[in-house]
Amino acid sequence: MSAAVTVEVGLGERAYDILIGPGLLGRAGVEIGKRLPGTRTAIVTDQNVAAAHLDTLTESLAASGVTPAVITLPPGEKTKSFDALQEVVDGVLAAKLERGDAVIALGGGVIGDLAGFAAGIVRRGMNFVQLPTSLLAQVDSSVGGKTGINSPRGKNLVGVFHQPKLVLADTAVLDTLPLREFRAGYAEVAKYGLIDRPRFFDWLENNWQDIFAGGPARIEAIAEACRAKADVVARDEFETGDRALLNLGHTFGHALEAATRYDSARLVHGEGVAIGMALAHRFSSRLNLASPDDAARVEAHLKAVGLPWRMADIPGELPNAEALLGFIAQDKKVQRGALTFILTRGIGQSFIAKDVPTSEVLSFLKENHPA
Amino acid sequence: MSAAVTVEVGLGERAYDILIGPGLLGRAGVEIGKRLPGTRTAIVTDQNVAAAHLDTLTESLAASGVTPAVITLPPGEKTKSFDALQEVVDGVLAAKLERGDAVIALGGGVIGDLAGFAAGIVRRGMNFVQLPTSLLAQVDSSVGGKTGINSPRGKNLVGVFHQPKLVLADTAVLDTLPLREFRAGYAEVAKYGLIDRPRFFDWLENNWQDIFAGGPARIEAIAEACRAKADVVARDEFETGDRALLNLGHTFGHALEAATRYDSARLVHGEGVAIGMALAHRFSSRLNLASPDDAARVEAHLKAVGLPWRMADIPGELPNAEALLGFIAQDKKVQRGALTFILTRGIGQSFIAKDVPTSEVLSFLKENHPA
Repeated sequence: MSAAVTVEVGLGERAYDILIGPGLLGRAGVEIGKRLPGTRTAIVTDQNVAAAHLDTLTESLAASGVTPAVITLPPGEKTKSFDALQEVVDGVLAAKLERGDAVIALGGGVIGDLAGFAAGIVRRGMNFVQLPTSLLAQVDSSVGGKTGINSPRGKNLVGVFHQPKLVLADTAVLDTLPLREFRAGYAEVAKYGLIDRPRFFDWLENNWQDIFAGGPARIEAIAEACRAKADVVARDEFETGDRALLNLGHTFGHALEAATRYDSARLVHGEGVAIGMALAHRFSSRLNLASPDDAARVEAHLKAVGLPWRMADIPGELPNAEALLGFIAQDKKVQRGALTFILTRGIGQSFIAKDVPTSEVLSFLKENHPA
Repeated sequence: MSAAVTVEVGLGERAYDILIGPGLLGRAGVEIGKRLPGTRTAIVTDQNVAAAHLDTLTESLAASGVTPAVITLPPGEKTKSFDALQEVVDGVLAAKLERGDAVIALGGGVIGDLAGFAAGIVRRGMNFVQLPTSLLAQVDSSVGGKTGINSPRGKNLVGVFHQPKLVLADTAVLDTLPLREFRAGYAEVAKYGLIDRPRFFDWLENNWQDIFAGGPARIEAIAEACRAKADVVARDEFETGDRALLNLGHTFGHALEAATRYDSARLVHGEGVAIGMALAHRFSSRLNLASPDDAARVEAHLKAVGLPWRMADIPGELPNAEALLGFIAQDKKVQRGALTFILTRGIGQSFIAKDVPTSEVLSFLKENHPA
């Protein structure tokens, strides 16, 4: 038996468990069977993840008497498209699954977002189970029910809220991740400390090596990140208020991702969030909301774990400050024309700031621009 | 001022009003402005409806200071496709609408289902306003939040539950409908009497001429049908139980629609429901659940208003009974292999019957087959 930790996401009749621990992929058949007895399933995955983990999952399901349909897609962000959505929807319907049956996402954030969206719209909502295989997906995309695809007009512009019935976060599969990808996921772990858990951030500063090494701190860090996100989501499932706090670092981060044309050789999402969080703290200090010491502390921690923390850390040239502001204004977190930012009064004291003056953002971007 | 009747759909924080009366299209700007002040809008419509009613709507919105984007699609069931969905989603994003803005459906059930689905998935859910222009859409598809498109594998297999913020049912626009289409919509009005409102069915038997003629009974009939559906939906928003009662007549009806390859020259949805309701009553009588007098009464009323009521009323040849049973088994109302039917103990006494024996259905279809 694995020593799995359980985090309950308290959403009333949509409540579900996240199990976190090593070896859960091999226990998937048992854990799914406990919660969804008699269910039939379709696994959605990508070619890379399938090569590494699909056999473990199908054998585990087979041992519980379940023979899944399997839908395998190309890896990468381009798979979050209308075409891939249509392919998954058709695959699930071809398997003749019914509402009470389950779509299983085996993969990172792209697969989870896509498979969850398909599960949310086939027969107006089927059961959904997530087996996130990246650190980012385990702490972020597997909690909260956001699903979706990209549009040529922007990322994640099309989707639904659809909660899973169960999440199995197998912490051992993370050992197969490239270090750069693990680090990028770690940025989202640190984010929860910076939002409203200052003691968690302290703990991360002292324990990050063990998290990277795969010691007991890894399970605890993932569990605490999931608890933190679950708390926010339970307060605001449909993002009408507090949930926006989860966007700490994302307004600057998304703009940098767009500015580098989503070229993962230059910047991946978690790295954009890392730089974005550092900038959000520095910007808050510039607006005299927080101490510059806190901004320095965030920067030092990101640097220590090997994450980029300033625009100058992005390889290649960036568009100028005016163009970056343009990317910020295009971001979907604009409401009725006003700029909304997550700012902070210090470590673990972030808040939603509406009507942030465009001129302040522009000056700040100019001061911090590497060119 | 029009004498509009208001029906409130009681869904807690998703509650909304249906306004029913003549001339509401010309009051759309005012009524939308009251409930969604400052909203921007995109109208989704089809070419036929646009020719008849788009100017009235855009002038009404303009008088309230709103300049809508307009997305016009080809008329007909083929528009409930992934391609059309993608076109609407892109049109709404191109208009740079935000979550708090509104997608307006101006048209019949196809446009309502498609536009509602798009509104449900753009930015994970935007405001949605329905202006149903057919009787069927006013009494059925505009109440209850079901949205969706068809798949090559079946009708309405892909969609979401997404409640509108407001429905404006302009009873005067129904005068522009072809009589056959009005009649088909009337079948769904009669359905509510047959489900659980026996006195409403009595009243319809005595007042149907005035409903067709456009007298005060038309407004009252639409309002009562909306109230009836709203009651069921409020009890079971996500169709886990009682809501299945709304499928009275639909299991046989869908099979007949599929058997005639959705050829509207032979059978439209409401006509399929009419025959399906008559068959459901006759089948219930054959199973000794209801009196044959009730089945005869249903058949007589459908015949009186000019609706088809038996398989022999469908022009052209039908597949044999075994093939019809195959279409029934393919229908999405099959749960884990068991046949579910809405049967009845008499007028206004319908109930959900699970595990109806296939052999009984087959014998019944053979006895009632025109060949």
